[in-house]
Amino acid sequence: MFKYHCRNFVKISMNKWYKQIFQMDFGPIEWRPKFATKQGENALCAPTPFLAIKEEEMMKNMNKMMELMKQWPNVDLRPHFKAHKSVDIAKQQIKLGAVGICCQTLTEAESAVYGGSIEDVFISNEVIGVGKVKRVVQLALKSKISICVDNEENIKDLSQLAKESNANLDLVIEVNVGQDRCGIKPGADVVPLAKLVESLPNVHFKGIQAYHGWNQHVRSAAERKERTNTVAGLAQKTVECLQSANIKCPYITGGGTGTFPYEAGTGLFTEIQPGSYVFMDADYNRNLNEKETFYSGFVQSLFIYTTVQSITGDERAVVDSGMKAASLDSGPPLVAGKEDSVIYHSGGDEHGILRPNDGFKVGQVIQLIPGHCDPTVNLHDVYYLIDGNEKVKAILPVNARDAGV
Amino acid sequence: MFKYHCRNFVKISMNKWYKQIFQMDFGPIEWRPKFATKQGENALCAPTPFLAIKEEEMMKNMNKMMELMKQWPNVDLRPHFKAHKSVDIAKQQIKLGAVGICCQTLTEAESAVYGGSIEDVFISNEVIGVGKVKRVVQLALKSKISICVDNEENIKDLSQLAKESNANLDLVIEVNVGQDRCGIKPGADVVPLAKLVESLPNVHFKGIQAYHGWNQHVRSAAERKERTNTVAGLAQKTVECLQSANIKCPYITGGGTGTFPYEAGTGLFTEIQPGSYVFMDADYNRNLNEKETFYSGFVQSLFIYTTVQSITGDERAVVDSGMKAASLDSGPPLVAGKEDSVIYHSGGDEHGILRPNDGFKVGQVIQLIPGHCDPTVNLHDVYYLIDGNEKVKAILPVNARDAGV
Repeated sequence: MFKYHCRNFVKISMNKWYKQIFQMDFGPIEWRPKFATKQGENALCAPTPFLAIKEEEMMKNMNKMMELMKQWPNVDLRPHFKAHKSVDIAKQQIKLGAVGICCQTLTEAESAVYGGSIEDVFISNEVIGVGKVKRVVQLALKSKISICVDNEENIKDLSQLAKESNANLDLVIEVNVGQDRCGIKPGADVVPLAKLVESLPNVHFKGIQAYHGWNQHVRSAAERKERTNTVAGLAQKTVECLQSANIKCPYITGGGTGTFPYEAGTGLFTEIQPGSYVFMDADYNRNLNEKETFYSGFVQSLFIYTTVQSITGDERAVVDSGMKAASLDSGPPLVAGKEDSVIYHSGGDEHGILRPNDGFKVGQVIQLIPGHCDPTVNLHDVYYLIDGNEKVKAILPVNARDAGV
Repeated sequence: MFKYHCRNFVKISMNKWYKQIFQMDFGPIEWRPKFATKQGENALCAPTPFLAIKEEEMMKNMNKMMELMKQWPNVDLRPHFKAHKSVDIAKQQIKLGAVGICCQTLTEAESAVYGGSIEDVFISNEVIGVGKVKRVVQLALKSKISICVDNEENIKDLSQLAKESNANLDLVIEVNVGQDRCGIKPGADVVPLAKLVESLPNVHFKGIQAYHGWNQHVRSAAERKERTNTVAGLAQKTVECLQSANIKCPYITGGGTGTFPYEAGTGLFTEIQPGSYVFMDADYNRNLNEKETFYSGFVQSLFIYTTVQSITGDERAVVDSGMKAASLDSGPPLVAGKEDSVIYHSGGDEHGILRPNDGFKVGQVIQLIPGHCDPTVNLHDVYYLIDGNEKVKAILPVNARDAGV
């Protein structure tokens, strides 16, 4: 499905890269033989820890999503780039029918537009300050850009700088539907903000974002559905306020991997923005379906390959993936195939401690299921895309690996 | 103190970099104007979130450490590179009197040796597998390399591959002094392993590592001291076993920022390996001194600069630093200057939620004290080194930013 041609390499000069960034000579030459596995070689030859995507499983997830979307012909799929940060994967999603992508950071959007020529990018977050707003405007000269707002001054900045560059931006007012993060209060507060947008040049009021992140991780399907109904009620109330003020709201976006079928099923939402479904993780795998059993809609496609580096007795085995290789924020990774018998305990920045030592040997390479895919991906430079025999089909860069600059 | 010359830049082509790594054309050109602040400019001009080092404070910490070391003339300081991953900072530490550095990953060691020509590097961790052992051996052709071991096969690999390349390695047997991670049982088990090392070509038994990571973060100084005495007792027992077998053990290394004065004071340890003292963090700042009051030996020099991106009411202010910019593993970051009045709550991957909104304004740039410096540093590409007026003196790369490959 993916077409790449990777070859082995020996040395790279980071110096040249830094030189370009800083317009100066940094001196150090770094030698990083990290990606020492060739296309066609077995992934087990690569230095651990690394991220592997099982291509077949990822494609199953992408196809499953398109299959599900057929139930909701009036709802668009705009997958979230923040989960994978990969231009290659985003292009594949669009090829299969996504209308574009969501990005959470400006760097993600820049990777998608400049790195992937993706034509329709929604920045599902507020981007503040003249320096960053200028970068948003630059993007809008190349692709169709929409962006979240919840603040008057920011809206004025976006309009003014877009006007100066003769660019056009679609603005989406974020509504706080219970996550208590960004976004205005649901209801009447939307009207003056939408009117402000409509009154200003080079910006256009596109609609509202009604996303609730915490709901994605509620285990019970019945409760996720009920909470999504609450979200939809708040979104509906906001839309009605706009309608009363004669402002059209043709766009309502929200929903993640945990709740998207409910948003899509309301008849209110026009777009959903799930991201993690391409990979899945231990946290999402704990969500239950309507029968309150394991939700098997999507399969695990992302794994951390790690080496057992120390064993002293049967009590534990130490692996070379610590919190610099696996984010622990939503619970630890699971040991694939031994999810119930072996527990990963934090061993600090560079180590994981598996208890008990269930027959592991020093030097053995094992697979971990990430606890939370998004921040784990952000710890790595590349993915190995592998086939069913663990043969490397391609090496995909994590293009927008970033603190969110 | 640091001499760098940074200039502004406009565009970089990531493509060229990937081309070098993968020996192939990746297609995407990325445009990442992340480091848009010139030397001499105010750091507040830079896009957030970013890491800033207050140079004066960092130098205070480095000088304070050298001052403390005078109490223990027979103990060497070998600071840990894993905390800062910066060749520039490591060189400064060595210039002030450190005997070399510790690294926890091979990539760190490669950055230090190839990127910084650092002459004495101790890899304070087990490095497993022929591919990685070959890289260790390559390092030993350029610098003096010592490395931890706790496994026979690994020792044999190190010897054989060192012999093949005509390199020499100093091996340090890691002893589990209570952390229950890597390392052999304290006591007699060390003897056959040390004998094995001595029997093999191109490897030399240097001594033991007796490091206990968890002890660093025990709040009470009395308890840290008592626990360190336990560690020292186990190390002593191990040394005695070696002596009974007529094996000299001239090197005993251990101790981090939380306990190093106790290891150094035992008369047993010949080296300490603190890392975080150059930066400090919210977690280490919670350690108490002998009077059980705030331990003021080192000052906070590392900060995350973040922008307030959304405010709706007085209940909260949302900043643009989430868990992709600030590691939450040891508790959340603190708001500098408002440590007691405002609490940072996780807002997910890209957001932090400050409660209450203590007079913050959208667009305001504020400083966070990292919860845990090491994994936070690993989320960023560079540091801004700033003076007392927040003027950028240099931009330092985080050379070995890595999952631990």
